[in-house]
Amino acid sequence: MRGMADHGTEVNEMTERIRCPALLARLKTADEAAALIGPGDTVAMSGFTGAGYPKAVPGALAKRIEAAHAAGQPFQVRVLTGASTAPELDGALARAQGMELRLPYQSDPTVRTQINAGEMDYLDIHLSHVAQHAWFGFFGEIDVAVVEVAGILEDGRLVPSSSVGNNKTWLEQARRVVLEVNRWQPAALEGMHDIYYGTARPPERKPIPLLAPGDRIGEPYLRVDPDKVVAVVDTDAPDRNSPFSPPDADSKAIAGHLLEFLRHEVSRGRLTPNLLPLQSGVGNIANAVLAGLAEGGFRDLSAFTEVIQDGMLGLLKSGVLKLASATSFSLSPAGIEEFNAHVGFYRERIVLRPQEMSNHPELIRRLGCIAMNGMIEADIYGHVNSTHVAGTKIMNGIGGSGDFARNGYLSVFMSPSTAKGGAISSIVPMASHVDHTEHDVMVLVTEQGLADLRGLSPKQRARLVIEHCAHPDFRPMLQDYFDRACRDSAGKHTPHLLGEALSWHDRLVRTGSMRP
Amino acid sequence: MRGMADHGTEVNEMTERIRCPALLARLKTADEAAALIGPGDTVAMSGFTGAGYPKAVPGALAKRIEAAHAAGQPFQVRVLTGASTAPELDGALARAQGMELRLPYQSDPTVRTQINAGEMDYLDIHLSHVAQHAWFGFFGEIDVAVVEVAGILEDGRLVPSSSVGNNKTWLEQARRVVLEVNRWQPAALEGMHDIYYGTARPPERKPIPLLAPGDRIGEPYLRVDPDKVVAVVDTDAPDRNSPFSPPDADSKAIAGHLLEFLRHEVSRGRLTPNLLPLQSGVGNIANAVLAGLAEGGFRDLSAFTEVIQDGMLGLLKSGVLKLASATSFSLSPAGIEEFNAHVGFYRERIVLRPQEMSNHPELIRRLGCIAMNGMIEADIYGHVNSTHVAGTKIMNGIGGSGDFARNGYLSVFMSPSTAKGGAISSIVPMASHVDHTEHDVMVLVTEQGLADLRGLSPKQRARLVIEHCAHPDFRPMLQDYFDRACRDSAGKHTPHLLGEALSWHDRLVRTGSMRP
Repeated sequence: MRGMADHGTEVNEMTERIRCPALLARLKTADEAAALIGPGDTVAMSGFTGAGYPKAVPGALAKRIEAAHAAGQPFQVRVLTGASTAPELDGALARAQGMELRLPYQSDPTVRTQINAGEMDYLDIHLSHVAQHAWFGFFGEIDVAVVEVAGILEDGRLVPSSSVGNNKTWLEQARRVVLEVNRWQPAALEGMHDIYYGTARPPERKPIPLLAPGDRIGEPYLRVDPDKVVAVVDTDAPDRNSPFSPPDADSKAIAGHLLEFLRHEVSRGRLTPNLLPLQSGVGNIANAVLAGLAEGGFRDLSAFTEVIQDGMLGLLKSGVLKLASATSFSLSPAGIEEFNAHVGFYRERIVLRPQEMSNHPELIRRLGCIAMNGMIEADIYGHVNSTHVAGTKIMNGIGGSGDFARNGYLSVFMSPSTAKGGAISSIVPMASHVDHTEHDVMVLVTEQGLADLRGLSPKQRARLVIEHCAHPDFRPMLQDYFDRACRDSAGKHTPHLLGEALSWHDRLVRTGSMRP
Repeated sequence: MRGMADHGTEVNEMTERIRCPALLARLKTADEAAALIGPGDTVAMSGFTGAGYPKAVPGALAKRIEAAHAAGQPFQVRVLTGASTAPELDGALARAQGMELRLPYQSDPTVRTQINAGEMDYLDIHLSHVAQHAWFGFFGEIDVAVVEVAGILEDGRLVPSSSVGNNKTWLEQARRVVLEVNRWQPAALEGMHDIYYGTARPPERKPIPLLAPGDRIGEPYLRVDPDKVVAVVDTDAPDRNSPFSPPDADSKAIAGHLLEFLRHEVSRGRLTPNLLPLQSGVGNIANAVLAGLAEGGFRDLSAFTEVIQDGMLGLLKSGVLKLASATSFSLSPAGIEEFNAHVGFYRERIVLRPQEMSNHPELIRRLGCIAMNGMIEADIYGHVNSTHVAGTKIMNGIGGSGDFARNGYLSVFMSPSTAKGGAISSIVPMASHVDHTEHDVMVLVTEQGLADLRGLSPKQRARLVIEHCAHPDFRPMLQDYFDRACRDSAGKHTPHLLGEALSWHDRLVRTGSMRP
């Protein structure tokens, strides 16, 4: 909260951000805006990896829902976003029991608990599919879009916020639009975005004219029909920030194996020294890989990925990365400070796109991305589970991992070989849920080592995965399973003991450990 | 075998087909050509769905291998193709125990038996990935290409045969090339092909300039470096032909449900009356769907698919289809006769492309194909198994189903609800192998009905799949499993009883039936 003395400054800042008189006239409080959302509405919100989500209206909507519930009235909405958001959105609406359905990706503890308790329906969708499925009408009508922006131009065009996500589609598809103009977002975001308006539904689609990660093929602003804008809400609130944490030993070991592999590919002529555009998930292992690239002497790399975090600013600054394309700019306060201090430098090297472009199969395959994603578990034959703990509990969602793994030049999945203090093996006889099939997984990495599965049959893969990736505590059990399966399985293409294939997960659920 | 009197005609026919003097000079017998292939070689052969595979050299190679084995010498090769071939290739080499490894798709009984006995390694790969993985070097060096063509021009360019498959890549990548010139193939194939030479490795890739299924973006001939051609073999042998068989009752019922669904989508404005480009697997159900489209009054449709069979000629003739793009032209003798009688008509309406184009994710997504493929089984949550019987035995392979299901406008999977006289349910608690994940499956169809899974969470899907697709004999067991899973599962996002999830398959293997 700011003091009264700041009031004049706030008004100036606000009119500086909202330059379109017609839209300034629709300024409303968050409560007034939330009142425009009704029970059963499909509400499409901005937000991708804790960046660019609306900060005020979701909380106001949650209060409204709680009041309705207290009065005995049902009130739930269907919530579509770009990807994960923050406690102010997912957390607030979940605590209010306000979401009937959520898509396409979430990472909020309250949401996760409710989904796994069977209290909320959740749709886990490839991030590149969301916008087109909305255009195809597969989600039904979108009643309201609630979209955070960094500003509004005089002519009503919008300066996108720290993430683009599905905002272009939400603004076009929704019947009513609520804009949150967030003064906390750097004004310098203006000009960093590349919003491609050349999309269409089949049969009117054309090739997407992007040839390199840094190409600009669109315009820096989002369009909205001003007649649909029912409320403009002024906010001044930070994104959920994720400061860069130094990698732990396992992450460093995983990064080490992967970097050795990349150097090997360069030495064999299958990659050039500046590699191919990198896609990297978020988190500890991804950070360790990026740090390792810097230490390993790589230069002039590029990223064609989903999220730019603090660590990438350092790589851009040092010349390890020459440019980065993403859909979300998820920075900590320190990252924002660094960005603001060198706006000119970063704006030449960063492009933010809609997620239908950052994750587009056409572009990922054309560019030949090196896809590097985390996983929950892999089985000995190379099927990867990215989403479900013990086959039944959702963790977050598939996100863009399928878009990149299927279409990339290389598809790498990484995890420590154990979890929960060694109780869980991330290498299992049979994956308890499959998000990436044997047809889409090329390389598996744990702190124990790397298995290059390219050109190998299922049994050849199994030998490598057990030997290189499994933790020594679980390796003999896996080898024993595989040996007995090769002997006793009805079919010996992908040998399994069907009565035992999921027994490790069953034991985990019953005893809290996969160990016998 | 032809009589002596025909010898002069044969020579004339042969020189008519092989017009390049330098290559005519390399005419060899199949045995001489097979002698150029050695133990351990990686041999890339033509062939896709029983069309355009080499007819003579594989058999000669098999004899050579058998002789070596009889003499106590090891002799195996690695065999890459477009897709399935025929007894003369896969069958002959398998019977000779001559294949160490096979990719990317097979349907030969002997090959299947050996793979499932653990005697041969098999790699099951998305058909759109094969050519690029060869270019990336993921299969190692290709020693010899053995490619059937319909003719050789004076300048050495090749008239492709009845399938294109990966031939462009094999001819470019192999160190040595053996050509089989098959006089049985209609001379009129000349001009029907569209070989796109604009591909490249990343980062040099460009958008593929194809906007509609009938667009021609390449040239009608295959190129080969004449210096690499070590043998030209003259053949006169038919493709493995698959005459059109009339659909059975289940196939008709499945087609009926699917056509009702398509009409519903048209009525809701999600499809126009001439739909979007159709991709259709091969076989009984696919034939019934095509026949149903004709009876249902659909007109001016297009196909962007893998295989053109006899049935499609009729649809082109009647105007139901206005054009068809594929990579294989798999006709019966009656189909060939019909084609030869109306060459001009069909050549304007049929385009044959390399499988890296027919199955390219960029093109399938741009065109918005309606992907219709068979399956072995689906589970109640919508995961599809296209490849493995009871999780361990390979049937054929994933083929192009993943290319189309992931990138199509609609992804449909179809199967009768039971197999083996009712002993097997094709709807199961948990798929025993996953080739298409919940993220990629939109519609399931059996003769019982259709489940439209778009926009539904896992539990919502399960209710629909059990009610609409399961056979009444298995429906109560599935409902009971689902009810108990919803009650007792640790996680209730995708409820499962881990100790029981694969019990139906286990029972099948032990007793020959999924019935208790």
